[in-house]
Amino acid sequence: MYRYLFKKIVFIFLTAVPVLTAIQAVCQTSKNEVPMIGAEVFIEPGQTPEEIDTWFRRLKEAGMTVTRIRMFESYMHKPDGSWDYSLFDLAFRAAEKYDIKIYGNLFPVTSFTDVGGFKFPRDEDHLKSIAVYIKHLVTHFKQFSSLYGWVPINEPGVGRIPNQEFSKNKFIAWKEKEPVSAYNSKGYDQFDFADERFLVDYNTWFLKWLTDEIHTYDPGRPIHVNNHAIFQNAAEYNFPEWRKFLTSLGGSAHASWHFGYFTREQYAVAVSANSEMLRSGAGNIPWLMTELQGGNNTYSGYAAMCPTKEEISQWLWITIGTESKGTIFWCLNPRASGFEAGEWAMLDFQDEPTDRMKAASEVIAVIQKNKNLFANARVVESGIDVLYSRESLWIEKKLQTGGPFYEGRNTGGVMKSALAYFEALGEMGIQSGFREFSEYDFTKSDYKGSTIVLAHQISIPSGYWKSLAHFVDKGGKLIVDGLTGFYNENAVNIMKTGFPLQDLFGGNIKEYKLIDDIFDLKLPDANLTLPAHLWKGTIKAVSAKPVGVSNNEIIASLNQYGKGEVIWIPSLVGLGSRIKKDYTQLSYLLEKEATLSLEDIPFRFVELQNGLLMKTMQSAKSIITIIINKSAEKRDVQLQGKGIKLKPRTLYADNGGSVSNATVQIFPEETIVIEWR
Amino acid sequence: MYRYLFKKIVFIFLTAVPVLTAIQAVCQTSKNEVPMIGAEVFIEPGQTPEEIDTWFRRLKEAGMTVTRIRMFESYMHKPDGSWDYSLFDLAFRAAEKYDIKIYGNLFPVTSFTDVGGFKFPRDEDHLKSIAVYIKHLVTHFKQFSSLYGWVPINEPGVGRIPNQEFSKNKFIAWKEKEPVSAYNSKGYDQFDFADERFLVDYNTWFLKWLTDEIHTYDPGRPIHVNNHAIFQNAAEYNFPEWRKFLTSLGGSAHASWHFGYFTREQYAVAVSANSEMLRSGAGNIPWLMTELQGGNNTYSGYAAMCPTKEEISQWLWITIGTESKGTIFWCLNPRASGFEAGEWAMLDFQDEPTDRMKAASEVIAVIQKNKNLFANARVVESGIDVLYSRESLWIEKKLQTGGPFYEGRNTGGVMKSALAYFEALGEMGIQSGFREFSEYDFTKSDYKGSTIVLAHQISIPSGYWKSLAHFVDKGGKLIVDGLTGFYNENAVNIMKTGFPLQDLFGGNIKEYKLIDDIFDLKLPDANLTLPAHLWKGTIKAVSAKPVGVSNNEIIASLNQYGKGEVIWIPSLVGLGSRIKKDYTQLSYLLEKEATLSLEDIPFRFVELQNGLLMKTMQSAKSIITIIINKSAEKRDVQLQGKGIKLKPRTLYADNGGSVSNATVQIFPEETIVIEWR
Amino acid sequence: MYRYLFKKIVFIFLTAVPVLTAIQAVCQTSKNEVPMIGAEVFIEPGQTPEEIDTWFRRLKEAGMTVTRIRMFESYMHKPDGSWDYSLFDLAFRAAEKYDIKIYGNLFPVTSFTDVGGFKFPRDEDHLKSIAVYIKHLVTHFKQFSSLYGWVPINEPGVGRIPNQEFSKNKFIAWKEKEPVSAYNSKGYDQFDFADERFLVDYNTWFLKWLTDEIHTYDPGRPIHVNNHAIFQNAAEYNFPEWRKFLTSLGGSAHASWHFGYFTREQYAVAVSANSEMLRSGAGNIPWLMTELQGGNNTYSGYAAMCPTKEEISQWLWITIGTESKGTIFWCLNPRASGFEAGEWAMLDFQDEPTDRMKAASEVIAVIQKNKNLFANARVVESGIDVLYSRESLWIEKKLQTGGPFYEGRNTGGVMKSALAYFEALGEMGIQSGFREFSEYDFTKSDYKGSTIVLAHQISIPSGYWKSLAHFVDKGGKLIVDGLTGFYNENAVNIMKTGFPLQDLFGGNIKEYKLIDDIFDLKLPDANLTLPAHLWKGTIKAVSAKPVGVSNNEIIASLNQYGKGEVIWIPSLVGLGSRIKKDYTQLSYLLEKEATLSLEDIPFRFVELQNGLLMKTMQSAKSIITIIINKSAEKRDVQLQGKGIKLKPRTLYADNGGSVSNATVQIFPEETIVIEWR
Repeated sequence: MYRYLFKKIVFIFLTAVPVLTAIQAVCQTSKNEVPMIGAEVFIEPGQTPEEIDTWFRRLKEAGMTVTRIRMFESYMHKPDGSWDYSLFDLAFRAAEKYDIKIYGNLFPVTSFTDVGGFKFPRDEDHLKSIAVYIKHLVTHFKQFSSLYGWVPINEPGVGRIPNQEFSKNKFIAWKEKEPVSAYNSKGYDQFDFADERFLVDYNTWFLKWLTDEIHTYDPGRPIHVNNHAIFQNAAEYNFPEWRKFLTSLGGSAHASWHFGYFTREQYAVAVSANSEMLRSGAGNIPWLMTELQGGNNTYSGYAAMCPTKEEISQWLWITIGTESKGTIFWCLNPRASGFEAGEWAMLDFQDEPTDRMKAASEVIAVIQKNKNLFANARVVESGIDVLYSRESLWIEKKLQTGGPFYEGRNTGGVMKSALAYFEALGEMGIQSGFREFSEYDFTKSDYKGSTIVLAHQISIPSGYWKSLAHFVDKGGKLIVDGLTGFYNENAVNIMKTGFPLQDLFGGNIKEYKLIDDIFDLKLPDANLTLPAHLWKGTIKAVSAKPVGVSNNEIIASLNQYGKGEVIWIPSLVGLGSRIKKDYTQLSYLLEKEATLSLEDIPFRFVELQNGLLMKTMQSAKSIITIIINKSAEKRDVQLQGKGIKLKPRTLYADNGGSVSNATVQIFPEETIVIEWR
Repeated sequence: MYRYLFKKIVFIFLTAVPVLTAIQAVCQTSKNEVPMIGAEVFIEPGQTPEEIDTWFRRLKEAGMTVTRIRMFESYMHKPDGSWDYSLFDLAFRAAEKYDIKIYGNLFPVTSFTDVGGFKFPRDEDHLKSIAVYIKHLVTHFKQFSSLYGWVPINEPGVGRIPNQEFSKNKFIAWKEKEPVSAYNSKGYDQFDFADERFLVDYNTWFLKWLTDEIHTYDPGRPIHVNNHAIFQNAAEYNFPEWRKFLTSLGGSAHASWHFGYFTREQYAVAVSANSEMLRSGAGNIPWLMTELQGGNNTYSGYAAMCPTKEEISQWLWITIGTESKGTIFWCLNPRASGFEAGEWAMLDFQDEPTDRMKAASEVIAVIQKNKNLFANARVVESGIDVLYSRESLWIEKKLQTGGPFYEGRNTGGVMKSALAYFEALGEMGIQSGFREFSEYDFTKSDYKGSTIVLAHQISIPSGYWKSLAHFVDKGGKLIVDGLTGFYNENAVNIMKTGFPLQDLFGGNIKEYKLIDDIFDLKLPDANLTLPAHLWKGTIKAVSAKPVGVSNNEIIASLNQYGKGEVIWIPSLVGLGSRIKKDYTQLSYLLEKEATLSLEDIPFRFVELQNGLLMKTMQSAKSIITIIINKSAEKRDVQLQGKGIKLKPRTLYADNGGSVSNATVQIFPEETIVIEWR
Repeated sequence: MYRYLFKKIVFIFLTAVPVLTAIQAVCQTSKNEVPMIGAEVFIEPGQTPEEIDTWFRRLKEAGMTVTRIRMFESYMHKPDGSWDYSLFDLAFRAAEKYDIKIYGNLFPVTSFTDVGGFKFPRDEDHLKSIAVYIKHLVTHFKQFSSLYGWVPINEPGVGRIPNQEFSKNKFIAWKEKEPVSAYNSKGYDQFDFADERFLVDYNTWFLKWLTDEIHTYDPGRPIHVNNHAIFQNAAEYNFPEWRKFLTSLGGSAHASWHFGYFTREQYAVAVSANSEMLRSGAGNIPWLMTELQGGNNTYSGYAAMCPTKEEISQWLWITIGTESKGTIFWCLNPRASGFEAGEWAMLDFQDEPTDRMKAASEVIAVIQKNKNLFANARVVESGIDVLYSRESLWIEKKLQTGGPFYEGRNTGGVMKSALAYFEALGEMGIQSGFREFSEYDFTKSDYKGSTIVLAHQISIPSGYWKSLAHFVDKGGKLIVDGLTGFYNENAVNIMKTGFPLQDLFGGNIKEYKLIDDIFDLKLPDANLTLPAHLWKGTIKAVSAKPVGVSNNEIIASLNQYGKGEVIWIPSLVGLGSRIKKDYTQLSYLLEKEATLSLEDIPFRFVELQNGLLMKTMQSAKSIITIIINKSAEKRDVQLQGKGIKLKPRTLYADNGGSVSNATVQIFPEETIVIEWR
């Protein structure tokens, strides 16, 4: 034992420290680094040394600087118990040769048909075998200077507690500590959501355990994790807790697997929302897009597709525009075997770059030419944040009873409602935040100029009732839509009597009535006719003033509370607009109600631009605008804001777009990136 | 033991007997009482005494006189084994205060997520624990004068034999007594339908057991039961058997849960058919609608909806027009917790009456103003009854093999075919019966003026072959549609050879051919072109005369049999018309073939009124007509019949409708109730 | 024991041998017999001797000479262990009386609800009980001269390995012998497809075992087997192995159960493809259509239907035109009990022939009048064969991941792609083969005039790489479509590097890109715009010459290889055309690329005839053409080919069609059969 410890200390001294020093200098451990773009090299037996060398050369030639490799235990740990790392050594050495940094993705033994890897141990022995694998893996590969960091697990997030011994025991132990919900719902009977609460903690625990194991043998090494299918799995992640041991946060964003809430035209805004969720989750640590679909699907993926080169550029610029410190495409070379054989790749079958790879290279070249600009670029916050609550997602899922499909009532209604506002703001040229409640900073003493949108967030957990009141009291603006606040965190209806948000909202709901799939919600005073979905809520106002009346009933109200105010439209006008594919009326509402002072924002569109979006960053004295046109026609986009006095310089435009004064000409599918100084 | 018996006897003497006397005087135990309208008060921990008091006050204010309460064992029986009835005592005392009668609905311990309660015991211990619960519950609450009666179980009817010890043992024991079908199909191999036959008996047994347990402690107390989803579950109920121990029969009719065979415009006729099925099931005992959807759905219900105030009036009047002795809406106040939290209610979140509650009050006021009229009102039988057979439903379900969806071939075809005729007659202004074979009175000696419709009743059990012959022989008219009689009760095809109904029908089928989803069935002599669905049957006539010939094959025939006759159209012309949403041609057929003497019927429409329906009652010398307009336009409805000589008085009209001579002007969604004297 | 053996020998001597002699002289054991048409007599208890007699008389009256009977053990083997064959004896004697030959279909005891019978034994005891049943059955019925042959099992083919002891043990034993795929994929990890490979062998094993058991008691008796749902189950059958012990191959082709890949208008071509698959599977032994849908569906069948009399003629002529030595309709008389009661029959409920039965009789009459002609008729091979591979079907099924439905990506894409070419050739009046790879003769030394179509055959097993090269080298033409060759037999992508077909195809794929559900693939040089589905492949040509270029990328190429050539269009143009229901462009391609010398083919259409098909046979000096018109309009079809010099004689035309010179006038739904001499 003494020897072991001694050796370990020496080892750290001799190897880890210098490596770490080197790493610190490179990238992705702080927010001030140049974004690194790369593609995953898929390593499997059958490949030749020449092929492996070629792939790293291709990365280099494309200007790529980073990759990620699945470190399959199956291909290292031999049946006789010995370890043979030679296949992967080839890759690590090639990486050194071409100066590529590698994220080693742990992949303990699993069945050949398990595409994504298991998410939790089966039993104690399995946990031990994982520890043994980590020890061998980490101690071997930390010798390579090409090793950049470790990804302890691929795509955590599993949907439900696995029906396996280890997980069940963990659940039992957890329940003993946290038997009931912290809030008791005033004596009402309630669901306990123990499964859901446990799963959040369990994911965090396992990630932390893996990280600790890695750091036992390779202390200080960067740790990165990629969640996935975030629009469905968000309710399972506790990013603020993860930040405590991660170096950077990441995610997998594959259109064909993960964007079921979107049409193909909406994939760009889907990447945008996904990126914002990661930026919010990352908080004080950097984030990068760990997997971004790079190639074609044959049999894998749900909505099979092959990205166009324009989509590759759009997606890449969106991640950069959301402050990502990097993006790794999945994948560089197609795997030959298993599910996904021959799919997803950025290289063709001759290992030549496809048009998608070339498109990525062109984006990289722009970044390389403007290193400082992009290293220090930060998202220009608009002050508007769309918030979702984990508990709303839990409850929506729990209460499904079947019947005809309605967007707002089936699983997905909560998330799509929030997305509607994010998308509408995007078409207005405004970059909003997209955050879980726990990721929003409710500790400030002044919220003037800040807006929170709560779109059909059916549950506001009791812990946030005071936070929201504080936010408004200190000058914030709250926009409330749909059935927001219908339940507490235990799915108990809190509108029935003694509505805890009555003072803040200025009243309570009289009732919700299901009207129709789509109906018109008329607010004549505001000259608005909003498309609404399913339910129309009526308000029993106490302190609030009506801003919409229908059949003598209040359908929208405004309440002054402290220095701020709450606009309440208890119908699904966000989702209604999204279903109708028309954000015109919703944008008028946001224009009027959100805190959108042109003095604070450098740029936004003068008019709603259906099918467009804009991301805005600031880097020293420069403003960077990234505009993407997903409509079918050329657009002349007029910008407004305090930035229009600055001088534009086109950094990137992939279809002939240009800027003149404050008007940007942009063609279909084009991305245009402008620096304003 | 002695002490116990003695106390029990004394208790009965002191309490139960006087209460019973009181009850007898009140209501719903005979057919000559004023209908009682109410709404279910949902009691759960967390509620305050003030709230509970308010709810009963609201009932009183609305003119409501009855409620039903789920007597949750979970909220009375404490973990230490003790019983605490205090929460429910509050309700029973409030009921006494406001003079509201309570149906106590047994609800033994079940999981929090079990919305409707279990339907059968799990094992012997479970059965014993139910008995203990009944003893405690009944002996405690019978002390209240507000207790009106007991509902031994919520919504019996379960779809299949539960995979639990108790049920499986019962099934084994049952099989020993009833191993095979009573009819042996002439030596042909056959399904035994043991599961289905057992389930019918098992439901009856458990209801009877519960009733006996209740009466052990509270003898003579009214017992009421509400079935549910009757269009699907009818095959599981044996109402004639239930009558032997029930005081009154009931049902749950929730549009969002139960009306999947109907569109929203058809919900009124769905309530009508549901009510007729209950009236038929009740026979000599009274019936009431135990649960009628009162409010909005968020996540519960299949086809989520919120009834309009007009629908509330329509549904209420339809139940009254079908001789219901009462209706209880589900529910008065929304439950706060669990599935259904914040849903279904007649009061809003401030405990104020909604427009639906007010609509119900207005109907109640009309009844209260005309107590005698409604107390003694009886359905005016048209002489026409649509019959369905339990066995047809069993066989249809058993023989499903998958493939593309066809209304007439998938589960539901049998019931929808019967409904088609009921709906068509409704649009003609004719109130027909809707009965299971076992509920029809085949013992009369004269059926002149009576018509039975057999629409695609694929199985006519052998026990009814003689009954049907007797019916026709004694002057009845039989209208036969679709594949009626294809099977006996054991799913053996009886048309193959020796068709047992050959003498009655006047021939046999040559063959059925599947033609198309919808095709035209032309009967040129009758100048009819009926829309037909799927199969076209051809007839080998023996004594019958052709009334329709196509390609030299008989497709419709008429047979004289004794004093009556049988019209046989072996194609699905009922369901075909329903699918095409056009009963014009079918109404011509019924006009011609059904026994519709204007001398017998007080009122009917002169012309088919698409989207309308009429219920007709007689009370002493008054005729009451209830007309509902579900079409989108105003209608001027001309009436005919022997009643047009009477003088009309509008009792109720909720949208400006009026009557002048024999013409009723009625607006969309309106219900108009007219007394004719 | 001695006595037993002796008796057995005597029995064989006295009975079996003469019977066998008789059989040999009759039919269906060689390819030079007159096709025998019949219908299955369904025997079950409850039937009377008179009925059974009637059914055989009806066969006789219709000119039918063969039937098949399910020999239910359940109806012979009594509860006390004794055997009572009397019910079936009635049938065998009636067959003798009316000179009908019987295929006895083994049907060991199974549950009443098991419509098709089990496919494998449950355990060793079950296997033994089957052997006992065979012994009793065979030794008893071989005494009848009406016994023609045995069908050892009904419709083998089960989809997956049964989860039963016997099958699992067999699998374990099999795995020990064949642990891994024969081909090792160059060291790449791979699926083993052990389940699929085992199931093929297991089916063969059980058929052989049953055959051996039968022959133990009735040596030399013809053995016939009918597979089913062949478009789905083909991957489970190894016909070349079956040929070794079968006398003839058969199949069940029921439109309502089996033709889910087709619309009703396509059922004729479905029968055609099904027949070709059987002809190919049969190889050197005769084949017959064992079950062909004869009547109406009520609840059984997926896409319920009733064949028209025209369809009966079409299907019958198609089987004859594909060299079938007979066809047996399912069924003559409707069974009375169980699933299928009252369905499927050729007789009506009065046991009178339906119009379908009469239509069959008319076809039979033509055959009887031209016995020699049809006895010796052989399919005129066009030289074109569409090939499919078992492994493509396995892989397609294995790799399903869900998501939106796409024809080419979901299960069925491989088969439908092959069918597209078969259908297009049919509309050109060309009869192509439709074969599994293992059924094609790759041993010839000259393939001039031969074409193989590989349409989206995603896997070409390694064993055929050389075969295909040999075929082309020796003058064959290969037409390659879609993702053909994407995988080897272990689902390893072989296009990545070192594509083994590079020399043959003249290059490799650069990449496939999913474009859209349908897109235009333009080949301007050929003046073609082919509708394509999902993926567009681009080619890296080595020796091949581009014949289509899009965006500077090769999308179609032509490679000379030895004496032959390969045309390669790596997009789904076959399936694209099928989805668009328009083979015009594809026919131009085939016209140009397939080896369609008019000097070799006696007849084909001058122009593409949408909705028509033609089968061509030769018998001595006569050519027989069978043309079917499934379009909605009358057509004047011009023929070309070396046969137009011959003189036509109309043998059959069921709707007034005629022939004049080389132009055939044919009405909708008509079948016309012409002899040319």
